[in-house]
Amino acid sequence: MSMERALALAARAEGRTAPNPMVGAVLVRQGEVVGEGYHHAAGQPHAEALALAAAEERARGATLYVTLEPCNHQGRTPPCVPAVVRAGVRRVVVAMEDPDPRVRGAGVAALRAAGLEVEVGPGAAAALHLNRWYVTSRTLGRPRVLYKWAATLDGAVATRAGDSRWVSGEAARREVHRWRRRLDAVLVGVGTVLADDPALTVRLVRGRNPLRVVADRQARTPPGARILPALICVGPTAPAERVAALRRAGAEVVVAPSPREILAELGGRGCLGVLLEGGPTLAGAFWAEGLVDEVTAVIAPRLLGPGLQPLGGLGPARMAEATGLRDLRVRRLGADLWISGMVR
Amino acid sequence: MSMERALALAARAEGRTAPNPMVGAVLVRQGEVVGEGYHHAAGQPHAEALALAAAEERARGATLYVTLEPCNHQGRTPPCVPAVVRAGVRRVVVAMEDPDPRVRGAGVAALRAAGLEVEVGPGAAAALHLNRWYVTSRTLGRPRVLYKWAATLDGAVATRAGDSRWVSGEAARREVHRWRRRLDAVLVGVGTVLADDPALTVRLVRGRNPLRVVADRQARTPPGARILPALICVGPTAPAERVAALRRAGAEVVVAPSPREILAELGGRGCLGVLLEGGPTLAGAFWAEGLVDEVTAVIAPRLLGPGLQPLGGLGPARMAEATGLRDLRVRRLGADLWISGMVR
Repeated sequence: MSMERALALAARAEGRTAPNPMVGAVLVRQGEVVGEGYHHAAGQPHAEALALAAAEERARGATLYVTLEPCNHQGRTPPCVPAVVRAGVRRVVVAMEDPDPRVRGAGVAALRAAGLEVEVGPGAAAALHLNRWYVTSRTLGRPRVLYKWAATLDGAVATRAGDSRWVSGEAARREVHRWRRRLDAVLVGVGTVLADDPALTVRLVRGRNPLRVVADRQARTPPGARILPALICVGPTAPAERVAALRRAGAEVVVAPSPREILAELGGRGCLGVLLEGGPTLAGAFWAEGLVDEVTAVIAPRLLGPGLQPLGGLGPARMAEATGLRDLRVRRLGADLWISGMVR
Repeated sequence: MSMERALALAARAEGRTAPNPMVGAVLVRQGEVVGEGYHHAAGQPHAEALALAAAEERARGATLYVTLEPCNHQGRTPPCVPAVVRAGVRRVVVAMEDPDPRVRGAGVAALRAAGLEVEVGPGAAAALHLNRWYVTSRTLGRPRVLYKWAATLDGAVATRAGDSRWVSGEAARREVHRWRRRLDAVLVGVGTVLADDPALTVRLVRGRNPLRVVADRQARTPPGARILPALICVGPTAPAERVAALRRAGAEVVVAPSPREILAELGGRGCLGVLLEGGPTLAGAFWAEGLVDEVTAVIAPRLLGPGLQPLGGLGPARMAEATGLRDLRVRRLGADLWISGMVR
């Protein structure tokens, strides 16, 4: 129960902690919660510090439930392990180790060296799921990519003419806006900008807008596009006058012509999670390089006939070469199905 | 409860009553079931007759629950209305009217004219669902078509090279065999025969094989194909020597080159329901003529990238022209999703 509470606290800051993970902490003494807290945003106090501050003297002899291994290094805020030890906490239950190379077990080891009892693992699956963006970022050195598409039941994301308005219904579109609020960046190809002129802002729910990003080698994004202000990732040969026009229109323009370079650029800006919203050409390019980590297919109860498929490029010749998905989840959103899975 | 029982009885004969509907009947007197029965197969007694025979004298003053309006015309068995009246049944509850032009309310009218109390409607939705094959057949004058495909989550039924083995898992394949047992005919295009050489028999569950049908304008089905014996629907210009070789191999060959002619041929043989198992070219031809009544998509937790889509042909240019599906149902079968819907 205490770890579930800590996880729920951690999730409150969803979309606001990057480049940091979401962390929640609960201090329990003699069956009573004596302090709790969660990390609100980068530069703000860590969850453990807030829980300790709330508990004051009651932290002595208490058990600390924390969703991620406490840090033992100086960052923008002081390290947590010495504070936990100083406060007289007797036992620490950690959902998962921190995959950050600066921690990776060092926090747990330091707590044990100081004589505290430490248990690692309770709530690990939920903690890993919540912070998978952070984990991918720290272990693979790039943001985690979720490719979201909306398709008819027969698999068309757009007609052969490129028309995609609208595949899915209001409830699913509202959920997409929730995901924009949750992830740090939203990425589309310039083809989508030219075809649909999407704003990619958070409108159907309340919350902050993500960084909006366009993969646009030749800087073809119109200076009047609704997506602006945005980060435009161009190639080295993008015409200078178009780049200049985009900058005048409020865009930030960087040279990042490939999926890997785009992710490097976003990672450098502290993005942990990227919502790839298409189209098929861009998604196919990420897919071909193994840079799609999870997918969400919004399936509308409609049949189109031949149209554009969610992944562009060249598929394999053998069905046995298809890539498996795990942890498939399905739910209904209005008339649509929301199906998500993790790429194996 | 009695109508539910009658529906359950009716469903026992699923796949065995064509060209007749499935019908179940329950006789209740003073809260006690005094007789019940269901129509087992064409030429066999009707459900009402079996229930009356079981009840004997106890039918007098009873209420008859029957899933379909009793007939008042002589078929291969005597009409039911006079027998119900003769037995002294006081009240008849009918789930739905019989859409057969020879009945269509005449049975209910005759019962009322004989002084019986008649109620129509309880259990109508379930009865209509169970006998939708029969209803389509009687109202549209052709068998009802269910198109089933198995696709990856990104909508590929096969790779660009045509390979489709295997998209879905064992549990879903077993359910497909149940549907082959349930429907009267299974239909594929010759492209599927040449690519996969499917037997299309019922193997993973117990039950009778459906009539196996190949749409094969040029009689290209190999005489050694596993689908034989089958009905081969050829065009008028099919080479005579290939037709002869197929007949020697045990095939029945008829001239029925278009979707509408194939359905007319199958309807003439008493088929009510046809399971269209692909491929995309044949399905697209049926779709283009409005001859797909419902669909089942088996969605496997896999991503392929570009491949063959379930419906061949030319899709519309505007997404707004996509065709809606109603009554979407979703369930898990092993790792796969089984999604079915009715074409609006």
